[in-house]
Amino acid sequence: MTLTDQSPIAHERLTTMGAALRVALDGPYAAQRAVARATFPAEGALRPVDLDVEASRDWTLARLQELQAAGFGSAGVPDRAGGHGDPLEAALTFETLAACDLSVTIKSGVQFGLFGGAIMNLGTDWHHDAFLPGVTTMELLGCFAMTELGHGSDVASLETTITYLPETDELEVHSPTPGATKAYIGNAARDGRMAAVFGQLVVDGERHGVHTVLVPLRDERGATLPGVTVGDHGHKGGLLGIDNGTLRFDRVRVPRRMLLDKYGGITDEGAYTSPIADPGRRFFTMLGTLVRGRVCVGGGGAMAARRALSIATRHALRRRQFAAPGRPDGVLLLDYVVHQRRLLPLLARSYAFGAAQNQLIEAMAHVQGEDPSTEREQRELETFAAGLKSMQTWFANTAVQAAREACGGAGYLSENELTALRGDVDIFATFEGDNTVLMQLVAKALLTDYKQAWSALDRTGVVQATTRAVGGMVMERTSAGLMLERLAATARRRPDETTLVDRGWHALMFEERERHSLESLARRMRSAAKSGGDGFEAFNRLGPHVQFVARAHMERVTLAAFVALIDACEDPEARAVLETTCSLYALSSIAEDRAWFLEHSRMTTARSKVIGDQIDALCRELRPHALALVEGLGIPEAWLGAAILRD
Amino acid sequence: MTLTDQSPIAHERLTTMGAALRVALDGPYAAQRAVARATFPAEGALRPVDLDVEASRDWTLARLQELQAAGFGSAGVPDRAGGHGDPLEAALTFETLAACDLSVTIKSGVQFGLFGGAIMNLGTDWHHDAFLPGVTTMELLGCFAMTELGHGSDVASLETTITYLPETDELEVHSPTPGATKAYIGNAARDGRMAAVFGQLVVDGERHGVHTVLVPLRDERGATLPGVTVGDHGHKGGLLGIDNGTLRFDRVRVPRRMLLDKYGGITDEGAYTSPIADPGRRFFTMLGTLVRGRVCVGGGGAMAARRALSIATRHALRRRQFAAPGRPDGVLLLDYVVHQRRLLPLLARSYAFGAAQNQLIEAMAHVQGEDPSTEREQRELETFAAGLKSMQTWFANTAVQAAREACGGAGYLSENELTALRGDVDIFATFEGDNTVLMQLVAKALLTDYKQAWSALDRTGVVQATTRAVGGMVMERTSAGLMLERLAATARRRPDETTLVDRGWHALMFEERERHSLESLARRMRSAAKSGGDGFEAFNRLGPHVQFVARAHMERVTLAAFVALIDACEDPEARAVLETTCSLYALSSIAEDRAWFLEHSRMTTARSKVIGDQIDALCRELRPHALALVEGLGIPEAWLGAAILRD
Repeated sequence: MTLTDQSPIAHERLTTMGAALRVALDGPYAAQRAVARATFPAEGALRPVDLDVEASRDWTLARLQELQAAGFGSAGVPDRAGGHGDPLEAALTFETLAACDLSVTIKSGVQFGLFGGAIMNLGTDWHHDAFLPGVTTMELLGCFAMTELGHGSDVASLETTITYLPETDELEVHSPTPGATKAYIGNAARDGRMAAVFGQLVVDGERHGVHTVLVPLRDERGATLPGVTVGDHGHKGGLLGIDNGTLRFDRVRVPRRMLLDKYGGITDEGAYTSPIADPGRRFFTMLGTLVRGRVCVGGGGAMAARRALSIATRHALRRRQFAAPGRPDGVLLLDYVVHQRRLLPLLARSYAFGAAQNQLIEAMAHVQGEDPSTEREQRELETFAAGLKSMQTWFANTAVQAAREACGGAGYLSENELTALRGDVDIFATFEGDNTVLMQLVAKALLTDYKQAWSALDRTGVVQATTRAVGGMVMERTSAGLMLERLAATARRRPDETTLVDRGWHALMFEERERHSLESLARRMRSAAKSGGDGFEAFNRLGPHVQFVARAHMERVTLAAFVALIDACEDPEARAVLETTCSLYALSSIAEDRAWFLEHSRMTTARSKVIGDQIDALCRELRPHALALVEGLGIPEAWLGAAILRD
Repeated sequence: MTLTDQSPIAHERLTTMGAALRVALDGPYAAQRAVARATFPAEGALRPVDLDVEASRDWTLARLQELQAAGFGSAGVPDRAGGHGDPLEAALTFETLAACDLSVTIKSGVQFGLFGGAIMNLGTDWHHDAFLPGVTTMELLGCFAMTELGHGSDVASLETTITYLPETDELEVHSPTPGATKAYIGNAARDGRMAAVFGQLVVDGERHGVHTVLVPLRDERGATLPGVTVGDHGHKGGLLGIDNGTLRFDRVRVPRRMLLDKYGGITDEGAYTSPIADPGRRFFTMLGTLVRGRVCVGGGGAMAARRALSIATRHALRRRQFAAPGRPDGVLLLDYVVHQRRLLPLLARSYAFGAAQNQLIEAMAHVQGEDPSTEREQRELETFAAGLKSMQTWFANTAVQAAREACGGAGYLSENELTALRGDVDIFATFEGDNTVLMQLVAKALLTDYKQAWSALDRTGVVQATTRAVGGMVMERTSAGLMLERLAATARRRPDETTLVDRGWHALMFEERERHSLESLARRMRSAAKSGGDGFEAFNRLGPHVQFVARAHMERVTLAAFVALIDACEDPEARAVLETTCSLYALSSIAEDRAWFLEHSRMTTARSKVIGDQIDALCRELRPHALALVEGLGIPEAWLGAAILRD
């Protein structure tokens, strides 16, 4: 790895602890991430704050072209037929981009991840040969036209039709209603030349469910093609560099071969054909290949949070307010307990999610890699990605806002970068799957697993199986999960004799929260199913419980990942700091739900009452390592760009 | 009251329930508010979403001039000497403005409330005669130059000096250090011609604490005057229409009479003179006159929340997603329990804060009105204003974000107005006093009261006084407070036999939360004081507890106000809806702190476990009244301006 003088981090100086924490958090990808940081052209990486919509789009396109030329854009998209692209490279590149401007990041995601990804994953050799080279070089800018105005999260109900016309061997793409208008589509308003359009495939009068077809949108000079109507969403709450817009199709015809036909196509004889007979399975298989987008968006949100926390914490280590006894020059912001409580638990959570994201990337690299994977592994990857995307993007919104408030009035000035982050990251909670809907998918997958586990036990005649054993079957398949289970086992016998920083106790609490809430949800689901009457209402009422279960699961998975990350850390001093950081994460999570633990007799009130003080104590313990913790987050100081940190 | 055809609400049609709820929530100011709504020139009231910084400033200034001409700008600033302005009119006008564009609102606040307010409250006849007419007509645009770069919330430590020069009978205004630079000052970067500058007054070498002097900044053509250096904060996270900037003074001289000398001035003989001997008391008296700003900003934040919730709730009453049994066209968003839980508790809280804000305005009108008020009333007003400002502006941030997410991708399009609200209202949590710091003031006032109550009991020899009696002395002085106390008394004997919607039980829980946390804070404060050693650290550790006490107090005050509002409502059907709304507010607040109630044995776990279901049930009960509840919030549909609600 060579650092040039042009690299802004060529001279990055870290504290010893900061460097060690960074290696630990970078985990299995420490080397790749170090190279990315050192070679990323970070000069001019941040969009000037006051560009208008058009100028923002210009800037973003130009910047992405520059990055593509430097090898940082098209990662993950193969430029040859049959290639799968390197999912690992895609995820790591995306997060590097997300450490800087999020419009560039998302435009990269639209072009390479979504548009390129659709061609790669849903298309076959001809599509790869014909289009991937143009995708990679950005000569062919494209859209991922899935969402419709009338059907935000409900992909199965898309109204756009893709009708096969045997007379001319063409497909007719049509938007039959205003609700069928494709909406929020990146690259649609201005730059896109082609779109991967999702719609209902109709062959010989029969519907075969959602498929994807490539439809040219504009000619070489950018003029819209006949039958295509484009709308511009214009100004947005953030991501001004993305030209989101609407697309309507009025009986637009394309050759049959434009159908991305890996999972469903039309024979020369004009008959529908698919390697997957079951339409439901086919639908979820097709959507499943797009999991990379969720992995990347969650990781991108996490990077936005890291950047905001880096700015706010570094500021809090410089800024003094109010003199106090023994501190005539004023107290450093980060020496106020209230300020520590604002920022340090969020830093801890950043580490926790970082550990989980590493595991998610690993799982994706496995499932999408060269080696074969099982359908079960694929489904688990989708659940993990959906849940972690939601958790990380909600967290990003919270963290960026906390960082803004922690910087006071200075945080509100665009020159300090937090306001752009705030605006940009907001929509991460909605796109690539609305978080609330994604959490429902997580809970649904858990319930399915749970049911299957019970059925399996029934079949083998083990009717006396304890719920614990069932829980074990559902939850602990990964090595990290097993490690956590072992920790929990040590605390299970006498939980109230453990200390508040006993990892076994944390593990036990996290497991109990998930297990018990899942079991009771399953029970309530069964009664709802039996109750008859308005089935929708019965399930509808379980909505908040469903969200709780999904969150409890994701928290446990995250803690397991953090424990595994510490286990892999070989530097004893960094390890000690990580242990404290992990305790702060775990205890903050327990504290948020301590009413639940009390209600379910998992904790005494005496113990619950002192959690707050213990969190304060952990903050105090981490306070001397605040700078190192920020360095460990892996965003070089020179990339932060906040004026407040300059003088 | 005459409605012209030009008024966009001339034809506003409300449901009967909506009209009744509006009257109830408008409370004592129902008539004034109805007139304001009907006469406010709401055409063009919303800033075009894509204006750049300069165009936003132009638009905002022009719009404010237009409003001023229509009688909606200068409310509250008298144009004659000796006038106090009408505080009631000021507060009501501010909230009407805040129902539309917040840049206009804040520019009005800077010009009339802060700059005009400083002249009015801190100046004497000559200042009033010389400057108030220009303030009122906006011929003299001005700044309120208090905050310094080095001293955000710490006004007592301001470094700017105002030094009396007897040789020339002038005052020399000087910024001795970079930290003394005035920062975030509205009207500074572009429009201001004069500033009310806060600094340390030095007479004959002696410092007399913070005083305020009027300093001309620019000549008639807008050129900066000698010795004045102006900076431009440029682009911000919102409020682009406000030209915030920095001000530095290099030994700028102004005549002695430019000192706003109501509370401290210089005699013709060159000696310092003040009607208030104690410097501390003088400082707080001067700052205290500025309470109107906090009252207005809190109310403005509340209006932003109302606007966002109005948009999101109306959208949720139109938008369908996912078909379900018996609902082939899809389920209305607001029929999802999860969606109800997102929006309805926030609507309930809007009503609660509305009730409290009415009382706050009433208190301000009394203290700042013609009739004399006591120092105690003034101090209570300041505490109330500080706390309610924090509560309402934090809430505004939460509510606007929830509304954005509840509208999904559409919420992110600027044409739907939520993103501008989000950006604009963000800083409300910081300006006019950082919320965290203001909550410390609230807790401090409560502790002082508590201490005085104990001392009074001690003096009268009542050593056996129960804590309850002390609590009573501290907390229940208002008639609303007494009403709540009576309700609590009915539940106190057998709290666990009450229902979850028993107002007496709510009252008891709110009181217990405040009383107990205040008592334990007082106890911890005493030990901290006794502990010796690092006094700062001992108090610092109580920071989170301090915040909890302040919040508990504000919640109780808010509930008391809501109960009083219902008591005043004469429409039995509206009253019933308000009772349910109040229960939803109260129970949501209890639910958030239910760990605390469990830890302190104020609630059984059995009871705690069913609160969530009870909240769901209340949401279900209010669901048919959702539109009426939105109408009651008092923002006419025609003012919302969201494209999403148009077709």
